Amino acid sequence: MSPIRALAYATAHRQRFLAELKDFIRFPTVSAQPQHAGDIKKCAAWLANHLRRTGLSHVKVIPTERHPLVYASWGGAPGRPTVLIYGHYDVQPPDPLREWRSPPFEPTVRGQDLYGRGACDDKGQMFTHVKALESCLRTTGKLPVNIKCLFEGEEEIGSPSLIPFVARNKRALAADVAVMSDTRMLGPSRPAINYSERGALGLELEVRGPRRDLHSGNYGGAVHNPLQALCEIVARLHDANGHIAIPGFYNSVRRWSGRERAYMVRTGPSDARVLRDAEVEKGWGEQGFSSYEQTTIRPALTVNGILGGYQGPGGKGVIPARALAKLSFRLVPDQDPLEVDQLFRGHIARITPPTVRSTVRTVSGAKPALINPNHPAMRAAALAYRKGFGAVPVFLRSGGTIPVVSTFQKVLGVPTVLMGFALPDDHIHAPNEKFHLPNFYKGIATCIWFLAAVGAARKPRFEPRAAEADLAMATR
Amino acid sequence: MSPIRALAYATAHRQRFLAELKDFIRFPTVSAQPQHAGDIKKCAAWLANHLRRTGLSHVKVIPTERHPLVYASWGGAPGRPTVLIYGHYDVQPPDPLREWRSPPFEPTVRGQDLYGRGACDDKGQMFTHVKALESCLRTTGKLPVNIKCLFEGEEEIGSPSLIPFVARNKRALAADVAVMSDTRMLGPSRPAINYSERGALGLELEVRGPRRDLHSGNYGGAVHNPLQALCEIVARLHDANGHIAIPGFYNSVRRWSGRERAYMVRTGPSDARVLRDAEVEKGWGEQGFSSYEQTTIRPALTVNGILGGYQGPGGKGVIPARALAKLSFRLVPDQDPLEVDQLFRGHIARITPPTVRSTVRTVSGAKPALINPNHPAMRAAALAYRKGFGAVPVFLRSGGTIPVVSTFQKVLGVPTVLMGFALPDDHIHAPNEKFHLPNFYKGIATCIWFLAAVGAARKPRFEPRAAEADLAMATR
Repeated sequence: MSPIRALAYATAHRQRFLAELKDFIRFPTVSAQPQHAGDIKKCAAWLANHLRRTGLSHVKVIPTERHPLVYASWGGAPGRPTVLIYGHYDVQPPDPLREWRSPPFEPTVRGQDLYGRGACDDKGQMFTHVKALESCLRTTGKLPVNIKCLFEGEEEIGSPSLIPFVARNKRALAADVAVMSDTRMLGPSRPAINYSERGALGLELEVRGPRRDLHSGNYGGAVHNPLQALCEIVARLHDANGHIAIPGFYNSVRRWSGRERAYMVRTGPSDARVLRDAEVEKGWGEQGFSSYEQTTIRPALTVNGILGGYQGPGGKGVIPARALAKLSFRLVPDQDPLEVDQLFRGHIARITPPTVRSTVRTVSGAKPALINPNHPAMRAAALAYRKGFGAVPVFLRSGGTIPVVSTFQKVLGVPTVLMGFALPDDHIHAPNEKFHLPNFYKGIATCIWFLAAVGAARKPRFEPRAAEADLAMATR
Repeated sequence: MSPIRALAYATAHRQRFLAELKDFIRFPTVSAQPQHAGDIKKCAAWLANHLRRTGLSHVKVIPTERHPLVYASWGGAPGRPTVLIYGHYDVQPPDPLREWRSPPFEPTVRGQDLYGRGACDDKGQMFTHVKALESCLRTTGKLPVNIKCLFEGEEEIGSPSLIPFVARNKRALAADVAVMSDTRMLGPSRPAINYSERGALGLELEVRGPRRDLHSGNYGGAVHNPLQALCEIVARLHDANGHIAIPGFYNSVRRWSGRERAYMVRTGPSDARVLRDAEVEKGWGEQGFSSYEQTTIRPALTVNGILGGYQGPGGKGVIPARALAKLSFRLVPDQDPLEVDQLFRGHIARITPPTVRSTVRTVSGAKPALINPNHPAMRAAALAYRKGFGAVPVFLRSGGTIPVVSTFQKVLGVPTVLMGFALPDDHIHAPNEKFHLPNFYKGIATCIWFLAAVGAARKPRFEPRAAEADLAMATR
């Protein structure tokens, strides 16, 4: 099936596609904040209607304990592979609000970019697939492959409902390959396919001292301040060389071969590039590893937030009763979030001074994931990028975490093609998030080419997935 | 002049005095928060009207750059001493709000206590003087001494306007002694007169890293996190023995004689008492000093608040661009806030890692103060407590800071009698602040006795103030 007519349709309808994407972004679907539960529900209903109008069938909004899943399918290509398209319509909190040049939920085009929370992560990117499906269905009435769409509203809070849902619906979700667009290219004309994602472990560390806030004049000097104690604990989580100072933490970290690391040097961003993208002057972290390695094949521990004491303007003479740090690990093969959770809890118990008490709460966890670059769907994605962007993609490792990738691998037995269209300067998770509009349009074309390329393979030609153990060898 | 009729009046009007105090507390006069500027203005007007009705003259609301001063006087006792009554009608922020059993600005009586922000610090305590003046004026038409009242709305933000105001109005504010009630007794029947206050230095320490918030997956491990760096800096402000680890910091800290420390042991609270009042299980701080000494003759550094990164529910995968700590020192003789400020800035510059940048902002400063316990007004206060509470007061050091005390000493050349009625469990600066109502009523009686006792001294009998250098010798 030639994609020519679908590509022409996509080109002709760019303005409408952009207007629809703006409508999609206007829903403030902040999954971490309970006050947005209603907005997420409305957005799920809007998305389901949109998929119905696109021509997909079995469209469903599936309630969960928190935010609903949206499912749709098309099964008119018997004997062809089935592609599971995954995406998420929830977004990160927009804080700090005052740093946005235009309001986060009023999508605004400036130059060639569309600004708004979720413009890139992931509403804009998942919409490339929706618009690719529409372009095929409205022109030829069919698709080159069978399709199952699974869009979730909890990715930014660790996919708590999706993972058990997939486990309970193995048969219904059976597919040959999964695809999603929630990762980065190296630059506007430098496409990349991710074959490695870090795992994650989200934690809260609370330190408690006096039973109530105390006057710092009356008690300062005689009572251990929980905020100070929290700082002292956090300062002891890394050593002077940027290593995570938790005994046993690196035991399960895989050592990669010289060949693998040489491939990473050839294909990955330079240190200078990583720092320029991050807009920082000086690198930091484990000695002996490049910035790219530090953020992909090495684990990390980040303090995402600290709350404690007086937060308002001016000062307040108080010793706070408690202090809280929000922490997250990024994990690499062969680390397991449960094991790291235990190591962390043991370490905190050991280093908490006797003058305060500490509590650790586990917020979320996800295993690291690897995908075989030689899988035929990965080769189809490489072809699609060549057609869509006019450039050969490189295979990259990502430092981020998409919990569903390891779930699809483990539960459904399928690899996930991470066909991302984000740029390094898209400010995802930060103020002024944007999506580069040429990437939106080329992304739709790439998705159309991907469906065609996968469809060109008769189902039996799909190889069984490589076992995870084989993947390290298969990445050259 | 016998205070018998005034005392009887005060006893007869307790219910009305309580109702008026509640009205006073209902104004949310949070000086640190700009949104309460209007409430502070209204409260100042209410207070001025109240003083006018009490029978004082020259009542004025004096605007400043931020929150107004309220002034009133009575000059009908020529040849008698002039007493400058000081108090503050502004209050600390009520956060954290959810921990209040009744709303902070809806004063509520439970048992023998009146709950509300400012009930004790300082609206309730300053009101004892106002009601003492009323009790004298309404019964005898006069006062035993000349009076100048100076009530400010900026004490909780370091008295930025009061101090220059006093300097500019030395002649108008000329007095023989100042008195204020903003300090603590040891227990309901254990009055105390403070003869020592710690100084203070309020600072903000900001640490900046990347120019914008970064995705902690993409950059975690390769970029120094400003929140982590802030923790590392804060952790280095104390050594393992609870000392402040700033070179030169202790150079100006006065060493007290064995006699002085023995007096403190006899009169001051035990370690167990301090910890019980603070509701903490284990003490902390400099070895070789009692808790009472740690909080009065030794300096302290407290982290009052930290802001940085994601503060909402759940998690957010972010490396924040900046982090901020609100810090305050408590200083002791002979430390100078300006010198400590310089030492702190130098130390922060030295210990800030090269991967981030830091900025220090000075928020407020006040010198430590000492008052001669042998001053006749101090002896008058001791007599007044014996009459008001039926108990001999002890002379105590306080760990808190009342910037105006050192200003009155330096600029007006008068000592300040710190005649406090607060209890250790009054939760000042914390949720569920309260004022013990028996102390309110006995406090009014004590203020009436104080005016009588000072009035009994003809002006020339007032000794010139002791130079600060003499004070250490005079405290036995």
